[in-house]
Amino acid sequence: MELNVERDSYLFINFALGSRYVSKTATKSVSEFEYDAPSMKTAVPGPKSQELLRQLGEIQNVGAVHFFCNYEESRGNYLVDVDGNRMLDVYTQISSIPIGYNHPALMKVMTNPNNVSTFVNRPALGILPPENFPDKLIESLLSIAPSGMRRVQTMACGSCSNENAFKTMFIWYRNKERGYANPSEHEVDTCMINQSPGCPDLSILSFMGAFHGRTLGCLATTHSKAIHKLDIPSFDWPIAPFPKLQYPLEEFVRENAQEEARCLEEVEDLIVKWRQKGKPVAGIVIEPIQAEGGDNHASPDFFSKLRNIARKHGCAFHVDEVQTGGGTTGKFWGHEHWGLDDPADVVSFSKKLLTGGYYHRDELKPDKPYRIFNTWMGDPSKNLFLSEVLNVIRRENLLEVVTRSGKALLQGLYTLQTQYPHILSRARGQGTFCAIDACNDATRDSIMIKARNKGLFMGSCGEKTIRFRPALVFKEYHVHQLLNILNDVLAEHK
Amino acid sequence: MELNVERDSYLFINFALGSRYVSKTATKSVSEFEYDAPSMKTAVPGPKSQELLRQLGEIQNVGAVHFFCNYEESRGNYLVDVDGNRMLDVYTQISSIPIGYNHPALMKVMTNPNNVSTFVNRPALGILPPENFPDKLIESLLSIAPSGMRRVQTMACGSCSNENAFKTMFIWYRNKERGYANPSEHEVDTCMINQSPGCPDLSILSFMGAFHGRTLGCLATTHSKAIHKLDIPSFDWPIAPFPKLQYPLEEFVRENAQEEARCLEEVEDLIVKWRQKGKPVAGIVIEPIQAEGGDNHASPDFFSKLRNIARKHGCAFHVDEVQTGGGTTGKFWGHEHWGLDDPADVVSFSKKLLTGGYYHRDELKPDKPYRIFNTWMGDPSKNLFLSEVLNVIRRENLLEVVTRSGKALLQGLYTLQTQYPHILSRARGQGTFCAIDACNDATRDSIMIKARNKGLFMGSCGEKTIRFRPALVFKEYHVHQLLNILNDVLAEHK
Repeated sequence: MELNVERDSYLFINFALGSRYVSKTATKSVSEFEYDAPSMKTAVPGPKSQELLRQLGEIQNVGAVHFFCNYEESRGNYLVDVDGNRMLDVYTQISSIPIGYNHPALMKVMTNPNNVSTFVNRPALGILPPENFPDKLIESLLSIAPSGMRRVQTMACGSCSNENAFKTMFIWYRNKERGYANPSEHEVDTCMINQSPGCPDLSILSFMGAFHGRTLGCLATTHSKAIHKLDIPSFDWPIAPFPKLQYPLEEFVRENAQEEARCLEEVEDLIVKWRQKGKPVAGIVIEPIQAEGGDNHASPDFFSKLRNIARKHGCAFHVDEVQTGGGTTGKFWGHEHWGLDDPADVVSFSKKLLTGGYYHRDELKPDKPYRIFNTWMGDPSKNLFLSEVLNVIRRENLLEVVTRSGKALLQGLYTLQTQYPHILSRARGQGTFCAIDACNDATRDSIMIKARNKGLFMGSCGEKTIRFRPALVFKEYHVHQLLNILNDVLAEHK
Repeated sequence: MELNVERDSYLFINFALGSRYVSKTATKSVSEFEYDAPSMKTAVPGPKSQELLRQLGEIQNVGAVHFFCNYEESRGNYLVDVDGNRMLDVYTQISSIPIGYNHPALMKVMTNPNNVSTFVNRPALGILPPENFPDKLIESLLSIAPSGMRRVQTMACGSCSNENAFKTMFIWYRNKERGYANPSEHEVDTCMINQSPGCPDLSILSFMGAFHGRTLGCLATTHSKAIHKLDIPSFDWPIAPFPKLQYPLEEFVRENAQEEARCLEEVEDLIVKWRQKGKPVAGIVIEPIQAEGGDNHASPDFFSKLRNIARKHGCAFHVDEVQTGGGTTGKFWGHEHWGLDDPADVVSFSKKLLTGGYYHRDELKPDKPYRIFNTWMGDPSKNLFLSEVLNVIRRENLLEVVTRSGKALLQGLYTLQTQYPHILSRARGQGTFCAIDACNDATRDSIMIKARNKGLFMGSCGEKTIRFRPALVFKEYHVHQLLNILNDVLAEHK
């Protein structure tokens, strides 16, 4: 895990406690298509947003809507709202905008006449793929395939990706159990009425604090917030503790290793217990960093040992990279930080990849057609955009940008929590996938609203965490803008 | 149900048994953007498709792929493949292409510079909707809202629509049970670990032969084919028999009414039984016509009584219009044929609507934000296309076109089954949502392959059924092309 940021150097940054950050890169020219700073005209949500909220409230629950956006006017890292407020956006549509708003390369995809038909005629990919489909997969998703994986299945969103990844693991597991023989007549008959053995009592092991989506299968592995799960029927599947580490990780190596050992022991106990209950664990699903659950990290050693436990007990190992994938940690996949040759059996993705889907090892390929299937199975127009996003990532060395900006951001967060120890703690991160805790949820929410009114739009997660999920084009220049605003807000809080 | 086609008139059609259909509309000019007929160069799949199949087979299971398509060259009702074969397409990407390939109106959406940003910046609709989002909903989805419904939630696909519709019904049901009080601490705690009462043992009643999607929640209500369900864990939810009617419906009114009464009785028994089991039925889900399960119809009287049973037992009534919605039955929603003022509590859609989603009554609106939520919650670029599709449907009176073409198609199918009674039977349909059974699955498959090689691409469903799912721009001219080819194939089969 690349958390070996030059943390000591924060002491030498050229600003006094409480003063504003001085941008070391202010002279650097900003990409021509972007604005240079936030610009606020009203409190957020402004009057236009409030009127639209009222209108939309007649149609949908709008309790989660922050404000309405003017996407035409948004550029790069800056999100413009309908009241003309321009904010530095470090939440990026719940971490799903890879290279900023209205990137010229993506605008070009739209104006290329060769692409029109891909948008206008959405195919049923599982039965009638377009001519260029294998080529587009090779040039986009397969060019970034995780270690050991040559097969990929696209899906429309993160939840469908995880649902189908789970199905792939169940099918693989039962085929193993059957010795790859055909299913019995009894299995075929019972599956039609939801009964065992056709619909077997298999389970997926997940972790407390995990988030893997909100459809019923995914939701049975999601344990981040009660509001997601309340009143929805679920499966009796095992839930292991996720390590609760102390930060900075380098300062608590021994304590954290103990905590991780405790959790791994519990994982093995649960696998055995659920096998005895007649609900064997077909797969283990885990995020490289628990995001929605509060930005919880674990060490490469933890993941390596967990991967071995999965192998030992014959469970598939599914790494959910829906939020960590796409370059935000400084490597393309979060699990690359573990340094394993054989890190996973299944890797699912969505968000920054613009299309959902999952990679899997050859061994897990479905044995028959129509077992993993739906009408659309993804959307080739999203693959077009993804190809271009990958070109930009390569051309502009965005993984290096993320690593550099991430170091500056984490360093700045360390400084802030030293300055405001009664307000902030537990700064942590990998690449720009950073977070910091407030002393309580009310303070966290208040900081976020004040920052927003000063032109900084951040996300929250867990109970009292602020999460940073900027686009990959978030430069050090933007880091300093962020830190300046946050510093101003905290200074007022004092 | 509008099955009162002038069936007797088929006897007077001006062609002799065994001869080719004479197009009565041959003089009518074909829309300028469309081809005028199929044109075949190779057997299907041709050599280029076969080479691409090999390539894609390295990446995915391609067992369900028919052939590869040249979508650029496809027009209207004609799908062109990579080997230059041009087929009359009456399956339309599993019933998901509303107004044919490359419709000029949809091409225009793409070339309108005002729309570019909607494609390039996919928002997280639940937190940061675009300025025009309420307007676009009003002009598209709300302009076609089912009777009694003013609220709609978009989703990315049919499965996510049904999953979230189920969740909406569970939340509504538990809120009723709690008397709209806040959940207890025990409920909040237990839901985090998948246990009752927080994750209650509620159920959804579905029907044998139903298809509602393939994610784990949906799959527990899907009972059309074993290959969809085998090896996937499921819920112990009640499954009622769907009426097995005899066709033509008008000739078996008494027998069919008896069969429907039997099924309705079973529905009530199951609701009582599952309540006693401690797994009360929160909702009943049903398709207006079971599609994937074999194009099974039921009468308006059946649906009316079922709706009353749902009300009597306090279950929500969810009509799944994913395949029947969008005009294909001659009305915009399949359930409009029932003639009820109060047909449903929830109506889900996808496919021809281009975006997934569901409408629901005010009473079912989620009481809190983030209960029905995900990152994207649909895709506004699909709403842009939908607005234009609705304009075309209105401007070109496509519901009337569907009704007219549907009558001609069903009439032709009646004629064919009279001509080939040893091969075909049970012709049935509503609008162009038509089907006919072959004597067995091998014959069905053989007819479909032979027809494809003559330029007619059809779909299958159930055990031995051919299903017709043309686009809404399928005119009588195309009906006669279809019947001519089918007639030729059957004549050879004789």
